[in-house]
Amino acid sequence: MSQRLIVVGGGAAGMSAASAARRVDPALEIVVLEASGYSAYGMCGLPYYLSGTVARADALLAYPPAFFRDERRIDLRLQTRATRLEPDKHLVHYREDGHEHRLGYHRLIVAAGGAPSIPPVPGLGNNHVFTVRTLEDAISLRSLLDAGHVGRALVIGAGYIGLEMAEALAERGVAVTLAEALPRVMSNLDPPIAALVEEEVRRHGVDLRLGARVDAIRTTPDGLDALIDGKVVTVDVVVVAAGVRPAAGIAGDAGALTGPGGALLVDDRMGTSLPDVLAAGDCIAPYHHVIGRPAFVPLGPAANKTGRVAGTVAAGGDARFPGIVGTAVVKVFDLAVARTGLTLAEAEAERLPAVATDALGRSRAKYYPGAEAVSVRLVHESGGRLLGAQLVGSGEGVAKRVDVVAVALQAGFAVEDLLALDLSYAPPYAPVYEPILLAAQAATARGAAVPA
Amino acid sequence: MSQRLIVVGGGAAGMSAASAARRVDPALEIVVLEASGYSAYGMCGLPYYLSGTVARADALLAYPPAFFRDERRIDLRLQTRATRLEPDKHLVHYREDGHEHRLGYHRLIVAAGGAPSIPPVPGLGNNHVFTVRTLEDAISLRSLLDAGHVGRALVIGAGYIGLEMAEALAERGVAVTLAEALPRVMSNLDPPIAALVEEEVRRHGVDLRLGARVDAIRTTPDGLDALIDGKVVTVDVVVVAAGVRPAAGIAGDAGALTGPGGALLVDDRMGTSLPDVLAAGDCIAPYHHVIGRPAFVPLGPAANKTGRVAGTVAAGGDARFPGIVGTAVVKVFDLAVARTGLTLAEAEAERLPAVATDALGRSRAKYYPGAEAVSVRLVHESGGRLLGAQLVGSGEGVAKRVDVVAVALQAGFAVEDLLALDLSYAPPYAPVYEPILLAAQAATARGAAVPA
Repeated sequence: MSQRLIVVGGGAAGMSAASAARRVDPALEIVVLEASGYSAYGMCGLPYYLSGTVARADALLAYPPAFFRDERRIDLRLQTRATRLEPDKHLVHYREDGHEHRLGYHRLIVAAGGAPSIPPVPGLGNNHVFTVRTLEDAISLRSLLDAGHVGRALVIGAGYIGLEMAEALAERGVAVTLAEALPRVMSNLDPPIAALVEEEVRRHGVDLRLGARVDAIRTTPDGLDALIDGKVVTVDVVVVAAGVRPAAGIAGDAGALTGPGGALLVDDRMGTSLPDVLAAGDCIAPYHHVIGRPAFVPLGPAANKTGRVAGTVAAGGDARFPGIVGTAVVKVFDLAVARTGLTLAEAEAERLPAVATDALGRSRAKYYPGAEAVSVRLVHESGGRLLGAQLVGSGEGVAKRVDVVAVALQAGFAVEDLLALDLSYAPPYAPVYEPILLAAQAATARGAAVPA
Repeated sequence: MSQRLIVVGGGAAGMSAASAARRVDPALEIVVLEASGYSAYGMCGLPYYLSGTVARADALLAYPPAFFRDERRIDLRLQTRATRLEPDKHLVHYREDGHEHRLGYHRLIVAAGGAPSIPPVPGLGNNHVFTVRTLEDAISLRSLLDAGHVGRALVIGAGYIGLEMAEALAERGVAVTLAEALPRVMSNLDPPIAALVEEEVRRHGVDLRLGARVDAIRTTPDGLDALIDGKVVTVDVVVVAAGVRPAAGIAGDAGALTGPGGALLVDDRMGTSLPDVLAAGDCIAPYHHVIGRPAFVPLGPAANKTGRVAGTVAAGGDARFPGIVGTAVVKVFDLAVARTGLTLAEAEAERLPAVATDALGRSRAKYYPGAEAVSVRLVHESGGRLLGAQLVGSGEGVAKRVDVVAVALQAGFAVEDLLALDLSYAPPYAPVYEPILLAAQAATARGAAVPA
């Protein structure tokens, strides 16, 4: 009898896991239980579907369900929610068509993703309140937008998803209020970098309210009245983007060890503390190279990679996921905002002897048309180990420049090691001294260079 | 009495050296001898000045001579050619205003740059034959272009400078014949990558002739007759871009040790084998991390960095230049063509057990408008050490992607180490699996991924 692998969750991590398992073992029985009506779609594309940049929802599907079923022989069950795990009996309970079922497994992978954090604000149950964490939710909101029913919107939370949502709505001509409880946008950036983002958001007409308290959402005949800092803002829809928590429940309830934020702890082969139960994606806390212990940083690339490793290992293959360094980039109107490693604030919270060095570079040779400013902040131990970087500029060239530091972090470089990096140069694409090199020079106090 | 530093050459390396020396020692006497009439200009910008993308020649100057003289108190002497070095006497001979002079030094930095290789073709002495290695030469050619005197041009050599020249001339509406002696363009790329470049060049109407023999250039009443493979091609100007050799003469003649191609050998503090003589820029062969010995790879970033290190050390400061990995990028019409480390051919010439893995990725999420193909070739020891990469695609995002591999080479990564790189992802800027990760997956035979 063939072995059975059950994957809980049909998102990026789950379908990566199922696909990787199939590649390792052609005979394995693979069952995927997915609570929603969709699998393997590009969740990070939802803001671009809302804005209309991506015309149709099905463009976001990596593959249609039939591909997984027919080509990869994966028993993909949509609208099927795993409800309980009995690890000692190797049994998973699930709900399908309104009925409870159970199914045994030899190996199980929890890839249930993340769930939106919902702040304790009365009135968020209204059907014009969206989290836009699922394709269904995005389709509902987009249909309201397409019908011309959304003139005013409140976005709660100015992390990267809230910013993407604000931009998407603004691009549809919606008047957007963006309310953030913290005193700045993107709390995973240091204040000087966040300030550049705030300026960009306001420059595009978004009513950004920092340190804002949303007390209640009230339904009125005219729409929704949001009570913000004691004043009423009337909107047509509310989008809640107040962060993501790991949907680790099924394994956590069964006794799996969890770590930061309640995310599942895993080894570098994606094994949890439960026998024959692996985990991957936004519900885990993988090892973070810079802080030297697990961290909860739910992002697409690690979800895909950890899914792949979990699936490979669950099917008997060999793979490892050594960890993350916390690299992310987000488009905020005309800015690319990127980070990797630790911010100064994060490094200080780790009690590291950290300093930050700021530099202003250019995206191209100064004489080449289209050269734009690139702001760089390097975070490092004084004269020592590189800890992180933040970059802000325009264009995809800026977005990918952060990767240089991401690789350097993975390699354990000192900030001095950056000085001699042999980075590509041609006037249309880069200045002879890359912005990151300028920052490294400033950080090592070697003074300024002759630009070319 | 203050010490005197003489710098031979006022290009990027020389002026970086002089400026770095000034920062270390405010009292040092610093003399720069520059044979041409210009210093510290962006030589890599010359093609863009020819094409008109850069309107005025003075935009290419990093700083005007007065800045170096007044602000940095550097005795910059233009039109002054160093002719001979007497290292035992600490004397340099030079020619200025038609007269021979000599000057003593405590330390000397040779930063004489590169000189164009001139193939042994009769007739290249004509004044409508250009090498476009100096600003003077570019100004002469541009004045012919601006006057409408150039309808047809022959470019000899299809390395990166020849390709940039062909593009610049084509953008001016010139009918360009591009003759290359080797059977492909850019001999520092492997054939499948070079083929993409050849297609791009031909798509833009350039008459590309590979494996071509230019026998002679003859001056006629109508212009210049180039005899190519026994047939006459009539043109108005010829641009020679047949490579660069190190202008190491003054130090080489004085007995300094030279290495590959006649370039000066230096230690990691830019010291030559002669006492108190340092060297920097396109006339040296710095250490190459991948091959483990010196290599002649004359490019702007290393010229600037080695100049800076030489100047710092010459003035009594502390700096090191650990080496290069051979990273370069060039714009060829709508393509960005980048390389780092070794090609397969170069690795085989080193007798390394190398293989190449090709992959085709995208520049953005597949559903995001403007996603473009990115071709990647990874060169690596089978299952082992990463040796190099070549990338071709469009846009500056592609250009900078090669830097990820450049850092990985400097870190000594194995190809497997690339699998877990935590690279930035957002649909407008990158796919969830970066093209380099796809290539690394293919190289380690872990199969394909679920794209998102």
